[in-house]
Amino acid sequence: MLKKFILYFLLLFNMLQLNAQHTKRPNIILFLIDDMGWMDSSVPFGDSVGLLNKQFKTPNLTLLAKQGVKFTNAYANSVCTPTRTSILTGMNVTNHGVTNWTSPVKNNTTDAKDTQLNPAPWKINGVDINRITTYPQLLKQAGYYTIHVGKAHWGSAGTPMSNPLNVGFMVNIAGHAAGHPQSYYGKDNYGNIPGKSTYQAVPDLINYHGSDTNLTEALTLEAIKSIEEPIRLKMPFYLNMAHYAVHVPIQPDVRFYQSYLDEGLDTANAKYASMVASMDKSLGDIMQYLSAKNIANNTIIIFMSDNGGLSLSGARGNEAHVQNLPLRAGKGSLYEGGIRVPMIVKWPGFAKANTSIKQYVIAEDFFPSILEMAGVASIKTIQNVDGKSFVPLIKNNKITDTSRVLVWHYPNKWIEGDGPAINYKSAIRQGSWKLIYDLRNGHKELYNLSNDIGEHIDLSMQQPAKTKQLTTQLKEILEKNNAPMPSYKSNSKKVEILID
Amino acid sequence: MLKKFILYFLLLFNMLQLNAQHTKRPNIILFLIDDMGWMDSSVPFGDSVGLLNKQFKTPNLTLLAKQGVKFTNAYANSVCTPTRTSILTGMNVTNHGVTNWTSPVKNNTTDAKDTQLNPAPWKINGVDINRITTYPQLLKQAGYYTIHVGKAHWGSAGTPMSNPLNVGFMVNIAGHAAGHPQSYYGKDNYGNIPGKSTYQAVPDLINYHGSDTNLTEALTLEAIKSIEEPIRLKMPFYLNMAHYAVHVPIQPDVRFYQSYLDEGLDTANAKYASMVASMDKSLGDIMQYLSAKNIANNTIIIFMSDNGGLSLSGARGNEAHVQNLPLRAGKGSLYEGGIRVPMIVKWPGFAKANTSIKQYVIAEDFFPSILEMAGVASIKTIQNVDGKSFVPLIKNNKITDTSRVLVWHYPNKWIEGDGPAINYKSAIRQGSWKLIYDLRNGHKELYNLSNDIGEHIDLSMQQPAKTKQLTTQLKEILEKNNAPMPSYKSNSKKVEILID
Repeated sequence: MLKKFILYFLLLFNMLQLNAQHTKRPNIILFLIDDMGWMDSSVPFGDSVGLLNKQFKTPNLTLLAKQGVKFTNAYANSVCTPTRTSILTGMNVTNHGVTNWTSPVKNNTTDAKDTQLNPAPWKINGVDINRITTYPQLLKQAGYYTIHVGKAHWGSAGTPMSNPLNVGFMVNIAGHAAGHPQSYYGKDNYGNIPGKSTYQAVPDLINYHGSDTNLTEALTLEAIKSIEEPIRLKMPFYLNMAHYAVHVPIQPDVRFYQSYLDEGLDTANAKYASMVASMDKSLGDIMQYLSAKNIANNTIIIFMSDNGGLSLSGARGNEAHVQNLPLRAGKGSLYEGGIRVPMIVKWPGFAKANTSIKQYVIAEDFFPSILEMAGVASIKTIQNVDGKSFVPLIKNNKITDTSRVLVWHYPNKWIEGDGPAINYKSAIRQGSWKLIYDLRNGHKELYNLSNDIGEHIDLSMQQPAKTKQLTTQLKEILEKNNAPMPSYKSNSKKVEILID
Repeated sequence: MLKKFILYFLLLFNMLQLNAQHTKRPNIILFLIDDMGWMDSSVPFGDSVGLLNKQFKTPNLTLLAKQGVKFTNAYANSVCTPTRTSILTGMNVTNHGVTNWTSPVKNNTTDAKDTQLNPAPWKINGVDINRITTYPQLLKQAGYYTIHVGKAHWGSAGTPMSNPLNVGFMVNIAGHAAGHPQSYYGKDNYGNIPGKSTYQAVPDLINYHGSDTNLTEALTLEAIKSIEEPIRLKMPFYLNMAHYAVHVPIQPDVRFYQSYLDEGLDTANAKYASMVASMDKSLGDIMQYLSAKNIANNTIIIFMSDNGGLSLSGARGNEAHVQNLPLRAGKGSLYEGGIRVPMIVKWPGFAKANTSIKQYVIAEDFFPSILEMAGVASIKTIQNVDGKSFVPLIKNNKITDTSRVLVWHYPNKWIEGDGPAINYKSAIRQGSWKLIYDLRNGHKELYNLSNDIGEHIDLSMQQPAKTKQLTTQLKEILEKNNAPMPSYKSNSKKVEILID
């Protein structure tokens, strides 16, 4: 009899323990910013506080960096949809084939016209949903409550990838096919004005229509409301807090704008800084909410931007390509300004507070990292996952791996005239070496990032062996992954990587 | 030692049992149709199959009626927002004060202009969210997974009532401030066409944009996808399956249209019948899904329309007010055609299959009924709940209560010229007696519904005592609830109910 009871007891105890384990799984928040540059905060991701860092006031991001670990060599792709798809699938851009931002309109390429090259056959509507397993799906299957709030932009309207509910999210607020909001202002209904709305009108925030609530604030309020549910249900949650900020349109957040003008910033910089401040307040509000609910210690926050800061002349000032200094160029470019992004991971009990990690990481690493953080083991995916978990780096920030190869690929035309490493470029990094390859003409540039983060000194002539080695590796990866390539208009032949 | 084990065992057993109990709570689906009349299906809610019943083919609704219980005296209000608010709050229209349909535009009355009367001070943006507790909130608190799909229309854009997430739903798909869709067609993006969208463009269904998927089908597919979650999580669910169908615009569902033309129906009737068939297919698809998931026996389905069928001349044929015969008039009217609606409850194990209940019930009864079905006891609400649970009627269909009083109140102007019991009317039913009161002039009509369902024989002169008694009761209820009343333009005085 006693034996039987003990057996029962153990059985039941196991079940309860399993349950307890489940409730102890960490919540995870990916705080993903749009178009935020590496220098666009008070937090220095460089070796010291830069001039541009001083234009911004981001006390909450500073706090996050103090509580977590900074990744100073974190990479995205040069435009948004490729990065978002890499995060979602764990695939490198050469593998998933969504090399450019997707149009909200189905079957509509976003490539600018070119006289020399035909567009590459990239996935213009987004990745094929039947060929991927997403990490939110896996998290959901593992008992996570999965929430998407804000910008989605994984695919065009009329396709499954346009709807976050189709990629593993149980809740979607304001995510759809568009890459930016029509307006950040509640008084504009975020664009939802009969007869005037565009594809960029932001959905779902109807109770803020006509109000003074900034889009970034509205998304924050809704995100907080959403995570009340899993807290109540005692389920671990994954929140994809994907702000539309700080993408154009550059519309000042009136709560912060004047203070930046008072600091002496010009209107373009003050407007932009106010949007960064707006985003920072969102982070702070969510961190405060987690503390108030006593779950801050069990919640991982990952902060990241989807590409470099916009550096074209216009919305962010008249002078182009100075917005990310000391990094060269910006969004759309394969120079560091376009692809190196701010990244912080706060993981109480695991990530050592107020430290830095120099090992380079890239967007597709988020897939295995998030699953590992969530304790989701034995992952089965349809696709080959290229990303590598950065969890070991967090657990031991002494690890360095100079043999790892990262690849970027942009066989597309982003803007009319080619800019600095903008349009038809591929790139590869190994250790501190980075090669940029021009798909138009086979021109190569080689930089040593360890002492030339600004990519000013092209070493391709001095270092022919390194240049050749990296070009060869780039070629192999592009071919192995069957990466989309443009073709020549003159003879319809596919562009090939030229080693010599 | 043994004692301790037994204690542990009992404790743990209790916990597990509690858990098991929870999983046995029934799922509840409210299948709410918009503007569907009492005669708009193959299912006869009258004593026999009527002529109009023969125009429709609704095999799934017929099946539901066979598996459940028909309420043949079920009432809504004469237009949609008042009914939807009564369901949500359990309050009679005289109590909640949302006497008319709310505009998608905030602070904008939907009353037509009148030369005699000023509009009543009704809640033009919807009910004050701080003064109500909704049943979805209570269900959610009790562990239900609450889902809204389709038409919401509880309040104007820019107010909390516009967003189903604010009234207790954990998921909202396609519900917002509008009362009808801009288009039922996927190829029209359900209205979301840049520069052409109105307040009626349907949100959230972006992955069907450009497709052939009818709105009713898209909502069904999304509803099924939504209930996968609580099934997976082993949580009971409440699904508010609130179709936009069969409200105008009357756009044929191409899957069914031709067959009705082939039957000899004219285009207006064939279009409308195809929309009813579309709705019926949705019901069938959901019922099939429940069976496939083995939860049909633990899922309650409540079928209901939010007001009577549209009977104005135009979209549903040239001749007005014949669309609900033998009932008089239609939507907007306090004659039976405007307020008596189809209603069926399938509750396996409780509602006796293939039976009818004649006892009259009304929209606000849904609040206490749904909570009782869900086993949610000791309900605390901010508002006074007027509704009465119909669960006792289901459990014992012999119960009749001829003393119960129902009240309708429409101190508004729906259409330009007054129609049959349309504009500025109140009504009261007790037993088989029904009095209709004209707020313009105090004119009274009295009908005995037991032998005059068509309300042709006004007995107010023959039955002065009954007329007086009902008028007095109506006046008391309107005054007790401080119901909104119009005022005279001539002297700004509030309209008062005149007993004699």
